[in-house]
Amino acid sequence: MNRQSEYAIRELAQDSDLPVEEFGARASALNRLLAAGLPVPRGFALRTEVVREIASSGIPTEWKLSSLIRPGTLVSIRSSPIVRAWGGPETLINVGMNRGMHDRLADRLGEYNATRLYCRQIQEFAVRIKRVDVEDFQAIASDHERVGEDPGSLVAAYLELYEDLVDDAFPEDPEVQLREGLQSMAAAWDGRSARLLREARGAPSDAGFGLIVQEMVLGVGPGPSGTGYVQFLSPISGEPQPWGRFRPQMQGRIEGLADRPGQPDHTFGKETTSPDFETDCPGAMRVLRDHGQRARRVFHMDVRLDFTLENGTVWLLDVVPAEQSARAGVTSAVRLAQDRLITKEAALLSVDPLSLDEVMLSQVDPRAETDVFAAGVAASPGAATGAIVFSAMAAQAMKAREEHCILLRVETSPEDVRGMHSADAILTQKGGMTSHAAVVARGLGVPCVTGATSIKVDVRARTVTLPDDRVLSEGDVITVDGTAGLAIIGAPALVDPDLGGAFGTFMSWADKARTIGVRANSDTAVEARLAREFGVDGVGLVRTEHMFFEPGRLTLMRELILAPTPEDRQAALNRLLPMQRNEFVEMFRIMEGMPVCIRLLDPPLHEFVPRSREAIRRLAEAMDLPISQVSARIEDLAEFNPMLGLRGVRLGITVPEIYDMQARAIFEAAVAVGRETGTTITPEIMVPLVSATREVEIVKSRVDAVAAAVRIECSCEFEYSLGVMVETPRAALRASEIARVSAFLSFGTNDLTQMAYGLSRDDAGRFMREYVNLGVYQEDPFQCLDVDGVGELLILAANRGRITRSDLVLGLCGEHGGDPLSVAFCHRAGFDYVSCSPYRTPVARLAAAQEALRSARYGSEFAGSGTSTAGDQGQSA
Amino acid sequence: MNRQSEYAIRELAQDSDLPVEEFGARASALNRLLAAGLPVPRGFALRTEVVREIASSGIPTEWKLSSLIRPGTLVSIRSSPIVRAWGGPETLINVGMNRGMHDRLADRLGEYNATRLYCRQIQEFAVRIKRVDVEDFQAIASDHERVGEDPGSLVAAYLELYEDLVDDAFPEDPEVQLREGLQSMAAAWDGRSARLLREARGAPSDAGFGLIVQEMVLGVGPGPSGTGYVQFLSPISGEPQPWGRFRPQMQGRIEGLADRPGQPDHTFGKETTSPDFETDCPGAMRVLRDHGQRARRVFHMDVRLDFTLENGTVWLLDVVPAEQSARAGVTSAVRLAQDRLITKEAALLSVDPLSLDEVMLSQVDPRAETDVFAAGVAASPGAATGAIVFSAMAAQAMKAREEHCILLRVETSPEDVRGMHSADAILTQKGGMTSHAAVVARGLGVPCVTGATSIKVDVRARTVTLPDDRVLSEGDVITVDGTAGLAIIGAPALVDPDLGGAFGTFMSWADKARTIGVRANSDTAVEARLAREFGVDGVGLVRTEHMFFEPGRLTLMRELILAPTPEDRQAALNRLLPMQRNEFVEMFRIMEGMPVCIRLLDPPLHEFVPRSREAIRRLAEAMDLPISQVSARIEDLAEFNPMLGLRGVRLGITVPEIYDMQARAIFEAAVAVGRETGTTITPEIMVPLVSATREVEIVKSRVDAVAAAVRIECSCEFEYSLGVMVETPRAALRASEIARVSAFLSFGTNDLTQMAYGLSRDDAGRFMREYVNLGVYQEDPFQCLDVDGVGELLILAANRGRITRSDLVLGLCGEHGGDPLSVAFCHRAGFDYVSCSPYRTPVARLAAAQEALRSARYGSEFAGSGTSTAGDQGQSA
Repeated sequence: MNRQSEYAIRELAQDSDLPVEEFGARASALNRLLAAGLPVPRGFALRTEVVREIASSGIPTEWKLSSLIRPGTLVSIRSSPIVRAWGGPETLINVGMNRGMHDRLADRLGEYNATRLYCRQIQEFAVRIKRVDVEDFQAIASDHERVGEDPGSLVAAYLELYEDLVDDAFPEDPEVQLREGLQSMAAAWDGRSARLLREARGAPSDAGFGLIVQEMVLGVGPGPSGTGYVQFLSPISGEPQPWGRFRPQMQGRIEGLADRPGQPDHTFGKETTSPDFETDCPGAMRVLRDHGQRARRVFHMDVRLDFTLENGTVWLLDVVPAEQSARAGVTSAVRLAQDRLITKEAALLSVDPLSLDEVMLSQVDPRAETDVFAAGVAASPGAATGAIVFSAMAAQAMKAREEHCILLRVETSPEDVRGMHSADAILTQKGGMTSHAAVVARGLGVPCVTGATSIKVDVRARTVTLPDDRVLSEGDVITVDGTAGLAIIGAPALVDPDLGGAFGTFMSWADKARTIGVRANSDTAVEARLAREFGVDGVGLVRTEHMFFEPGRLTLMRELILAPTPEDRQAALNRLLPMQRNEFVEMFRIMEGMPVCIRLLDPPLHEFVPRSREAIRRLAEAMDLPISQVSARIEDLAEFNPMLGLRGVRLGITVPEIYDMQARAIFEAAVAVGRETGTTITPEIMVPLVSATREVEIVKSRVDAVAAAVRIECSCEFEYSLGVMVETPRAALRASEIARVSAFLSFGTNDLTQMAYGLSRDDAGRFMREYVNLGVYQEDPFQCLDVDGVGELLILAANRGRITRSDLVLGLCGEHGGDPLSVAFCHRAGFDYVSCSPYRTPVARLAAAQEALRSARYGSEFAGSGTSTAGDQGQSA
Repeated sequence: MNRQSEYAIRELAQDSDLPVEEFGARASALNRLLAAGLPVPRGFALRTEVVREIASSGIPTEWKLSSLIRPGTLVSIRSSPIVRAWGGPETLINVGMNRGMHDRLADRLGEYNATRLYCRQIQEFAVRIKRVDVEDFQAIASDHERVGEDPGSLVAAYLELYEDLVDDAFPEDPEVQLREGLQSMAAAWDGRSARLLREARGAPSDAGFGLIVQEMVLGVGPGPSGTGYVQFLSPISGEPQPWGRFRPQMQGRIEGLADRPGQPDHTFGKETTSPDFETDCPGAMRVLRDHGQRARRVFHMDVRLDFTLENGTVWLLDVVPAEQSARAGVTSAVRLAQDRLITKEAALLSVDPLSLDEVMLSQVDPRAETDVFAAGVAASPGAATGAIVFSAMAAQAMKAREEHCILLRVETSPEDVRGMHSADAILTQKGGMTSHAAVVARGLGVPCVTGATSIKVDVRARTVTLPDDRVLSEGDVITVDGTAGLAIIGAPALVDPDLGGAFGTFMSWADKARTIGVRANSDTAVEARLAREFGVDGVGLVRTEHMFFEPGRLTLMRELILAPTPEDRQAALNRLLPMQRNEFVEMFRIMEGMPVCIRLLDPPLHEFVPRSREAIRRLAEAMDLPISQVSARIEDLAEFNPMLGLRGVRLGITVPEIYDMQARAIFEAAVAVGRETGTTITPEIMVPLVSATREVEIVKSRVDAVAAAVRIECSCEFEYSLGVMVETPRAALRASEIARVSAFLSFGTNDLTQMAYGLSRDDAGRFMREYVNLGVYQEDPFQCLDVDGVGELLILAANRGRITRSDLVLGLCGEHGGDPLSVAFCHRAGFDYVSCSPYRTPVARLAAAQEALRSARYGSEFAGSGTSTAGDQGQSA
């Protein structure tokens, strides 16, 4: 080493500048505290490149380390990686401990404590630096009680054992201890296991790492003394209130040093029954408050202070970002921006969009103790507590009594939908992310866990058997944590959401920043109202079939499907028409002229037919037909692969009367609401499961005919736009042709992913976890858009479509619309909007804002691939 | 009209040249007969452009038509479209008939016949040219018996009625009749219905059409007289033998003119009990033979001669391609080439590849009368007759007694496979082109009709109820026509195949001409042997699972799937290993070193498990487990969309022991056969249902490990190549990455089509016909490769794959491999081979040959897209 140690080592000082990338994050942070006039113990920082050289070549013998450790003091050696999350070797404390220090400390701390410190240092040095097995010291450790009787012989025993094990005497010279300590810490950073660990945390292979040598404050003394941490922000709500913990008469992290029973921990802010720090140490509290304020200004964030109190004097040992929930994070960011400590843009970028999921919903309090009895698929986020019920009927009964309940089923079917509305949460033994339960629950915003395969639900006996053979019965209280995918016995504490206040402010900033539309998938008026409360730009997907799952309508729908003659079919349609129209009327009213994109009937018809013998009997009764005939027709409808069968536009073409009825309901509703409000409603009609242009042409010509008829009947003009839900790879490939007859393309990435991968989401559950764990898929492509495969289809279709029609409106309405990376992808691809479950729209809005801010800064990756505007109106097709 | 009528009208003559595109096909053909010195009645041809002008403006009055019709003769006006298949107005005969001709003919034909000719002409002229309703003549027609009594008054009645209806006198002037006849024929060609009809047959909107005016030969007289047609080629076998029909004393097509009972038709070549022409008219027969030979040389094809015999003199009225079955077409083409009348290339191009399907299989004799009782999906071609059986067991029993049987089921399942081997044909009430029955039947080459939804099969009662309420029972004889998709009561005559002789010669020429490989999909040794008989370049797809459907193995497979512990699973695998190995040993032996591409286990496991209560009970017995446990496991395996579920490589990754076993069986078999034959077997291993590169990497590393182990155990070296079956759109999109770890890509276009369209072939049946009829899809994409969508994925994947690996081997192994247009597509895309069902390989070989010949002539459409070679060897991966 041919550098001067003056370059290599810098003293922490008000006027020194220690950049993070040269000295590491902790050194830099401590120095900034010092620079702000805050009390930090004397210390020195070693440059990262120097630490790397120490690791390979050791410390040059010409270095004089004596200036780092003043006589009569102890120092600690602490790691300072460039990024805190990379971790690093544990702090080595009490460096410099020797016979002389022992004698000196015995006066202050008593013989007992001084001896323990000395012995502990001998052992630490042997284990941490000389790499001796800690077990070798256990024989002596079991003799610990001798410390009070004959401290001298205990020390002698430690020193003797040290010499035996290390084959050298314990270094009484503090400078030697320091030298060897530094070399050991540098080598540990360079070691294989540390490297692998930090690389797993995202560190580069040449991750830099500094070291700090810092004088120790003992935190022990006759006046208020001890060690603790404090932040002035509630980690749950984000409100400005002190929160932390303080351990009196304690030095750093060494457990039991003070060994004084009857000295319980203190807490801040009277959150618990523990003694309150402020009451006991009001002076220190004032100082800490002031320090916290100053640190917040220095670091432009809410921070946690690690401190030691020695006879009433506060010393700061570290400063890190405050511990905070997602909600607290939003509140903190808004207050920082309002206090002008950061810009609004920085506030928006400081919050992980996915964390908003938590903000929106009740959550299990992270501090609560929980008795988890099953893990499954986190199918719909949020948490709720209630009594177990095993049937939709029972759920409705509970709801009527205003009691909370959890619907527990093997799996759910359309007959359960009413009960699902009534349940506070849903738990199913089978199913995955798109099982019936999952889809309905997400739409309703009801917490749901599916595929809890370890439990056995016995609906008849009304019991559920747990893997450990415990049995729960109807009425037992459980909690479903749909965020974590867990089912919990009993009622752990929950944290409730608050959509106003700081959260409302935050979202309004996000809306100003973003440039692409965010719509909600809303199947019913209830969901549309929810979407408006959340603040969306329109409805991106109305799955019209969901309206048919209401009990009265379901019977009609079944009569339609099983109609023995065309006249019977038309009769059923005539009765369904006003029901559909009323739904649309209500939805158009709620959305007040915002775009509403209505998808024509999509699912295979057999989804609507009953399965149970009794339900079939009742249906036969209602239709005045023999059971055998109804059963035969139901059997006829069965499909091998319903996902790939007679559904979507294929239904629209083979049974065109259904789409005719739906189009009429839409237009009549648009006219009615338009008249009522004096506005113009321009509905968007979306054709599902298209694989050929001709399908769109055929549907379009029939819908045009219905529109013409309604215009004449109502003697009024209205426009509408017709577009395609791109769900098949072929529709993506043929987009340029399809765009000739489509005003918009909306990508149904759920199905598109299923078909690109040849993978049904309902069936993927049984191996998806294994696939992601093995790295076969980097992520579950149903959670996070597969940019390489499905994404290529999106870009290709968007570009081809825009070649044909420059004003083609492009949207995404799969569940990826609520995934931040997918939202960013859509922004870059120049899409007009994304649409997702109402509960996910805040996530999408923030993700859209962040991508807009980032691309304003760095430019778009897909420059020139299209016009990226916030414009989101459909136009007449 | 300012042209000379000499330009417009040309006399048929030895030295005149009447090109098809100027005068139409018939005029040209007749003139070529004349040019060859053959006897054609005097005639004139009108140029097509002139006919068009006549249609719009009529015949110029200055034209003298008298030269076209000599006094004392009658003429016919015949159509001469440029392409015969376009059709045209019916021939107008006896033009020029009038009182004078009547008197003249009465001498030759008798008063009776002359009067009928005259009356008929008056009526024809009124109906065909003056557009009078034919019903208006019926009152007179019912008085026909009067003709013998008072011919004069009958003629007067006709002339009077004509004048009444037409408001003008019947034109006695032959020239006027001719002028109006020509104008009428020209106008008819230009009419809307004729235009639509011919456009449906592929004619362009400006299709050209000539007219012929030809002197009539009456075919009536004291010497051998009459009209007939003859060809010197059996329309069934193609052997050189006379075939045709002759009607004595007959003029053209007018029925009953001669009205002479006791004058039955004659036939040629003693095929029936009818009088033989050659016996009765040996002289005319010699002349016709000579004419036939000459015409064959002139037209370079076997022809049918339409002739009239008048007092022993032969006149030729037309020459058209000989009527011929597909088999006869092949035989004819080979003989023409052997006789050096055409080149081998022309012979290859003259046969429609699809017609070879017929050649390969027994077919219902097209002349047989049939009682069709059901129409369904033509799932596997060919025809067979046998007694109805309703169970696989019964089929096996019939086979054991060497009796023919037809297996009739609602649908088939793996448990029926043994019985399907034993049946002569299969008929199912449900299912489509990829139902279990269809796939297995095609593999076995057993005729099969699926989806015969109009019949009701009652397996328990052993009856089938037909739509007309007839009931068939076990033992009743029926015939399944899998080519036409029909089921027939009784045993119509069948025509048997002959693969040697001319067919063998023809296929050897095709093999020389083609440049891409044709392999067979062969799942068993039986099929591999068949494939070799047919002459293939290797096996392109071994679906290993089919080996497991044999009864003994099926039980083992079920034990494997339902194994309660890993040890049980391994025990089952250990017992399956030698069975798989033996299958591969036999297959490698049969293929004698040709490439064999083995696909690792693909279908979802639940395809193997039993469904019936009894079968589950027996399985539980065999496994020594409670029924409930077996049932529960079976239920666990059920999937919503099995096509998109846990199958293919997903199984290989989640239950890797199965692929390990299969790889070991393949390698051990390759080593064993290599030693036995002193050759090197380089198996190709194909990974199914890949959607991510990492899947291939994981399988490859395990297969490599197995190979390494087998190499050590056998102490010998061998190579193998590993590739991917491209069945998901994503695999196609990611081909450049996948090609890094794959020696070959083989496109599974069945699944690729399913996923590109989002359409399960098993479920498409219920609307595919409607979709094709409506023109939503131009063709059934499962029958004919969808070039626009799926084809783009193929080209894209091929190009991306070759960028990564220039020697990437490319194949197609879906059923499109047997579709001529798809084979041509693969040729143009530079694929190395196609692979299809053994029975389809001749179709593929001929299609490949034709495309090679065409592209040699016109160049490749995809020039530069890759190397197009016949090379078809895999290489070590």
